[in-house]
Amino acid sequence: MPRYALKVEYQGAPFAGWQRQKDQPSVQEAIETALARLEPREHRINAAGRTDAGVHALAQVAHCDLMRDWDPFRLMEALNHHLKPLPVAVLDCAPVADDWHARFSARERRYLFRVLPRRAPATFARGQVWQIGHALDIGAMREGARHLIGHHDFTTFRASICQAASPVKTLDEITITQVEGLSGAEIHFRLRARSFLHNQVRSIVGTLERVGAGAWEPDAVRRALIACERAACGPVAPPDGLYLAGVAYPDDPFA
Amino acid sequence: MPRYALKVEYQGAPFAGWQRQKDQPSVQEAIETALARLEPREHRINAAGRTDAGVHALAQVAHCDLMRDWDPFRLMEALNHHLKPLPVAVLDCAPVADDWHARFSARERRYLFRVLPRRAPATFARGQVWQIGHALDIGAMREGARHLIGHHDFTTFRASICQAASPVKTLDEITITQVEGLSGAEIHFRLRARSFLHNQVRSIVGTLERVGAGAWEPDAVRRALIACERAACGPVAPPDGLYLAGVAYPDDPFA
Repeated sequence: MPRYALKVEYQGAPFAGWQRQKDQPSVQEAIETALARLEPREHRINAAGRTDAGVHALAQVAHCDLMRDWDPFRLMEALNHHLKPLPVAVLDCAPVADDWHARFSARERRYLFRVLPRRAPATFARGQVWQIGHALDIGAMREGARHLIGHHDFTTFRASICQAASPVKTLDEITITQVEGLSGAEIHFRLRARSFLHNQVRSIVGTLERVGAGAWEPDAVRRALIACERAACGPVAPPDGLYLAGVAYPDDPFA
Repeated sequence: MPRYALKVEYQGAPFAGWQRQKDQPSVQEAIETALARLEPREHRINAAGRTDAGVHALAQVAHCDLMRDWDPFRLMEALNHHLKPLPVAVLDCAPVADDWHARFSARERRYLFRVLPRRAPATFARGQVWQIGHALDIGAMREGARHLIGHHDFTTFRASICQAASPVKTLDEITITQVEGLSGAEIHFRLRARSFLHNQVRSIVGTLERVGAGAWEPDAVRRALIACERAACGPVAPPDGLYLAGVAYPDDPFA
């Protein structure tokens, strides 16, 4: 059976997350249902990252096994046709080897977290940003974030329900920038690692927000990290601002 | 009665346009209804530009007359409270002179038109861009746009229902750039003039799109302009991509 990698964009709000669930809409189910319109049978697809309820993706990667040899462009068009009107779009399809796996072959995940600091309610980006009513000190947040880069025990920044075998991860990048958006200046957090713990990005962003607001000293991030206990974490940021922004593979199937 | 200028952001999709209408929702009515929650009576407000059905605003400007002296920040907060959950937000309020008029005092209007050229359906920007399935040649569109800059009879680019006294306008700027958005590269058209004719921006963008797609030569824009007849215009672009981006006054009330 030919295997295909799919690059997928979606809004998180209408879904209980990526993963198929009983009685709740999921992105996985939406795509599997579209696949069943092309090749009628039960489909099971795998994704690089199981995004939580409300979390968005700019470039989630999944793979599926099909019976027919599909032209990648026609496969993309057919899936998008059947996904309408859901806010899920297949951006690219590519044939991959039988042993290629969207999750296990991945070497790096990138996340984007958007914060809109303004009083007036978001109109265009509603549900697509974390809106806060105060300004954020980017310099202070960068100083706090510096402590998290590298190989650490991230127990503080891990959901209690996290199923990862170990809380030790290597965080390769946290970049914090101000970006001019349609609705004014946004703060963008970009995080990059081989893999992340459950709620790690939202826990880190929520903690750095406290630093940006002036409630925490930048050094408090270091102390929270070395405490290695969940209670030392700042408030967890809401899912609205979080996007799975990309997944890297040794051989990029979409290159 | 103290007069206030309001800077307003809104999504166009849920409304039949800015202007109050019988039996159809309008942005004007939404704001007048919110004002009536603050000072119960009938309110009538004026705006710098009467945006059409489906057209968005990043910074529409309107003015209202109130009985009480309102602190501008509290007025903004109160209006936003009563505007929820509509996708309309007051970004700023400022006291202005009794003879200041949002429409007649304005010296310049700026519009943004967003085009998303990609095959996969828009998810995050759905209804907020004009999505087209093919690439656009920016160089060719700039060459075509050059003919429209300056003082011209814009009859070709004017809706037949346009009520302006004269079709002669001065177009000060058309800037066409590629901008990286959340969903990939967008093409942004930015137009600036003292005032515009009805449907002028959408008529110009729709015509330039034909040039960008290779269906029209850039010089055909010049010939369309000098033809001075509506039939010479290209297809009118849909409202989804159009934003009233700003209004300039001799004395910026929000400065």
